[in-house]
This record gives sequence, C-alpha cells and structure tokens, in this order.
Amino acid sequence: MMLEKNTKILIVGLGLLGGSYARALTGRGFSVSAVDIRQEAIAYALENKIIAAGAAEPDPALVGEADLVVFALYPHTLFDWLERCQGLLKPGALLTDVTGVKGAVVERVQTMLRPDLEFIAAHPMAGREVGGVENSDERIFHGANYIVVPTERNTPRAVALCRELGELLGFARIAELSPAEHDEMIAFVSQLTHCIAVSLMTCNRTEHLEEYTGDSFRDLTRIARINDEMWSELFLLNRDALLRQIDSFTAELGVLRGYLADGDREHMRELMRYAAARRALFDKPEPKDRNK
Amino acid sequence: MMLEKNTKILIVGLGLLGGSYARALTGRGFSVSAVDIRQEAIAYALENKIIAAGAAEPDPALVGEADLVVFALYPHTLFDWLERCQGLLKPGALLTDVTGVKGAVVERVQTMLRPDLEFIAAHPMAGREVGGVENSDERIFHGANYIVVPTERNTPRAVALCRELGELLGFARIAELSPAEHDEMIAFVSQLTHCIAVSLMTCNRTEHLEEYTGDSFRDLTRIARINDEMWSELFLLNRDALLRQIDSFTAELGVLRGYLADGDREHMRELMRYAAARRALFDKPEPKDRNK
Repeated sequence: MMLEKNTKILIVGLGLLGGSYARALTGRGFSVSAVDIRQEAIAYALENKIIAAGAAEPDPALVGEADLVVFALYPHTLFDWLERCQGLLKPGALLTDVTGVKGAVVERVQTMLRPDLEFIAAHPMAGREVGGVENSDERIFHGANYIVVPTERNTPRAVALCRELGELLGFARIAELSPAEHDEMIAFVSQLTHCIAVSLMTCNRTEHLEEYTGDSFRDLTRIARINDEMWSELFLLNRDALLRQIDSFTAELGVLRGYLADGDREHMRELMRYAAARRALFDKPEPKDRNK
Repeated sequence: MMLEKNTKILIVGLGLLGGSYARALTGRGFSVSAVDIRQEAIAYALENKIIAAGAAEPDPALVGEADLVVFALYPHTLFDWLERCQGLLKPGALLTDVTGVKGAVVERVQTMLRPDLEFIAAHPMAGREVGGVENSDERIFHGANYIVVPTERNTPRAVALCRELGELLGFARIAELSPAEHDEMIAFVSQLTHCIAVSLMTCNRTEHLEEYTGDSFRDLTRIARINDEMWSELFLLNRDALLRQIDSFTAELGVLRGYLADGDREHMRELMRYAAARRALFDKPEPKDRNK
C-alpha cells in the first residue's frame, strides 16, 4: 500500500472520466486538484467539492506539488501537455493515464519523459454516452474492469501503485496486459463494437424505423452515440489491430450467412449454442461491497 | 372498443410471452385461460392466479368458449395446432399470434383457416433472455412497440381489436405494417442484430476475454444468449430478407473499414456524427402512465 492520505493527486483533464476519478478519490479522503482548459469545469468541481484546488492553466504551484498525476486527455493533447509542461512536475512524480489505446501512446510518452518521472499506463474500462465533469459519477467504475499496461521501463512499485489506484476507484477486476495485448483486445471488445454500432445506424436510413424498434436494436446501437473526435483518433492510433478484428468478424458473419443461405439449420444452431453458452461468462460481476 | 370484460381469452402456449399476456390481461379484469403441453406451466399459472383455467391438452370446453385466442407458439407448432384443433373453436372467434416473422406464417394460416374464423397477425416486440411462464412479466411490454400486421383478408374490426389488445397490454407504440414490410424491418432491427451478437461471440474464442470486457461488448452480445431452436426457425422463415440485411450491413461496415484503412478521418467522423445524431431518435419512450 503506497497511496497514503497525504498523497497529492492531480487530474489533468476534468471531463467525464477525470471528474469521476476526482469524485472517487476525494471521497476516499485524498487531496485532489485538477487542471482543465474549461474554466467552467474547474468552477463546477470546486463548487461541488469534487476537487480541493484547480486551475484553467497548468499552474506551477499546483502541478509542482503533485505526487500522482492522472492524464484524462485525448492522446494528442497528452503529448502536447507533456512537451509544454513536464518541466513543472516534481521529481519522482508518478504519471498515469486513461487512454483507450496504448501501443501508440506508452512508447512515445515514456521516450519523451524526463528520466526522473515514471509513466505507467492504465485503461479504466468505463464510460457514459455523455461527457463533462457535470456528468461524472464514480459508480461507472463499479463492476467494471481496470487494465494496467506496464512496459519493461516500469518499476514494480509503479505497477503496484497503479493497481491500488484501480482498487481505490472501485473497479471490480484489475488485470495486467502488455501494450500489444491490450490493443488487440481493445480492438475487439471496444473498437469493433463501436464500428458495428455505427454501421448499424448508417446502413439502413429508412425513416420512422424507431417506431418498430425492439430492445435488441437499442442495445446494439447505444454506443453509436459516439464522440467522433475521440473515437476517430483512437481508431487511427490502433488501425492495424482494428482492421484485423473487422476482418475476422466479417468472415465469421459470412460463415453464419453461408449456413443461412444453404438452409443448414444444424450448423446455425451449433453457432448459436456456442454463443449462448459463452455469453454467460461475460455477465457483469456484482459490484464489490464498498463497506468491506 | 370491442374487448369487454366478459370477453373470454385463451392463450395457446404459456411461455414467457404467453405468460406475460396472461398476467397483463388477468390484471385488467379479463377471464384468461391457457393450454400448454407443460403441465407444470399450467399448474404454476393457476397457483399464481395468472390464469383462471388451464389444461395440458386442448380441452374442447376451454377452447370452444374462447372469443379471442392468442397463439404464443413457434411457427411450426402453430400450424400443427390449427390443423389438429381448429374444429374446436367457436364460430366467429378472433385469432392472433406473437410470431416474429409474418410472410411465411400469415398467408399459410389464413389459407388453412375455417372461413368462420379470423386470424389477425401481431408482433409484440418484447422479450427476455430467459423463457417460461415462471419468468413472465408484463413490464416487458412497457415502453415497447407492438406491430399489427393485417392482410387484405382482415376486417377493420379485427384490426381495431388487435390494436386495442396492444394498448391493453401496455405497449408504448402501436404500428401497422404489411407482412412484407414487417419482415424486411424485422430482418434488420431484430434478426441482423442477433446474427451480429452471435458472430461477436464466436469470432474470437480467446480465453479469459471476460476479464477485460467493458459495457459496450456486454451490450452488443446480451442477445447472444439465444434460443437456438426458435431463432434458427425464424431466420429460415425469413431467409431472403435476412440475407439482404446481412449483405447491406457488411457492405456498410466495409465502407467504414475502407476509410480506416485509408486514414480518412474526415469521412469516418462524418459517419460517426450521422450515427450519433440518428441514434438519439431511438431512445425508448418513457413507459406510459398506467393510471391515466
């Protein structure tokens, strides 16, 4: 256990995720501050006691006292911020992030970073279809998965601390993957599903379809309410893995299509039975009892 | 208004949907009976006062007194039942169903039916991932859509009565479509989405994937817990429409894939923005206030 109550935590980027981190960590008794270019986000978070201090500029005093810095930014803004502001950070500070792709981020950040700082990548697999600190809610972490993504440059201490952060935030499962494993997995479970949801919404532009829609269509397209700026960036940063996953899925849908075209009911049923049995494994675990 | 409190309603097939119909209609004060080959289903429903009378065989007295008969059966068992038992039905009785495809069902039923009976097709777009009267729950209808699917052989009275039934059950929206329109729509919003969910569960058989899964993957695969007997029958009964929809979706996913491969961020964002804006139309309406 290395995160102590006097650990000063700085959130850079106070949107939905950054705000939810701030709520959870303030609630656990930590001193949390934030920087965000939206002055209203800082004002809202101060007013609602989500953070203890904040600024719309990377204030040297605020940045310089942080022991742990969480970057909740788009990848390109993370690189920009570090280029401009890493000189302000305290020697020995630990840095982590929330970015949805890792290969294109971790290597670049660890290479550009001052040698007396350490960056340990993490991916909190949680979100909502609405953004902004005003919609932040630490309950999005409950029952969800948190992936720590270390490289050879990371120390065991940083890995342990990052895992502890995930636990403090209330995640149900903490896992560890390499950047390449993470990106292949995320291309499948997250990016491919967003591509499918978008294509379902764009492939049939019949009007009034919403009058005839059932829950299954709503479920499969909920995530089509997508932030195009963020997701197009994440897709392009993970292009090769996502192309592979789209191709693998398309081929598999083609197999089912083939059985249907052939009237091969037995093979269709076999795929369905495998899918049904396997899906049972994926039900969300019950949220952890926070009072334990 | 033609459904009066003395209307005798018979449910044939007391599973999840039949049971939910029975609960809703009994709750509105109707006299509801049921036949189901599962004796335990009948016993459960009698014990829980979901039905007033029931039998595991098509009891002539029970079947012969029904004014309205709801078939909540698989298509092939509907044909079988009518062949064997339509002689028991009261002249002038109105028949309806809950079947998920219509073209292959309505024409055949209306052709085989005694001329003094009328069959009006309907599709309640509601369900759960569990079956059986034991899991029935009329709340599955609240906020959901109900489609009446008349043909030229149907009378305006039957159409009106079928719409009224949808309202009584608590559906949020009642629509009318021809069998061909219904089947093309259902191939898209329901059957294609089930194919996608199944293919997502079968295309990547990596173990331990559930440890890294977020809500989006869970959402897109919830319906992969599929009843293979029922869905394979429904897919085959609507084969041509479903093949068209799979092809249309695959082509659209291919367009997005092409933009990604080309690094064409602007076109990707355009698709995402269209999808996000359109998806907002599909949010479920608030359940109707039942006390109005």
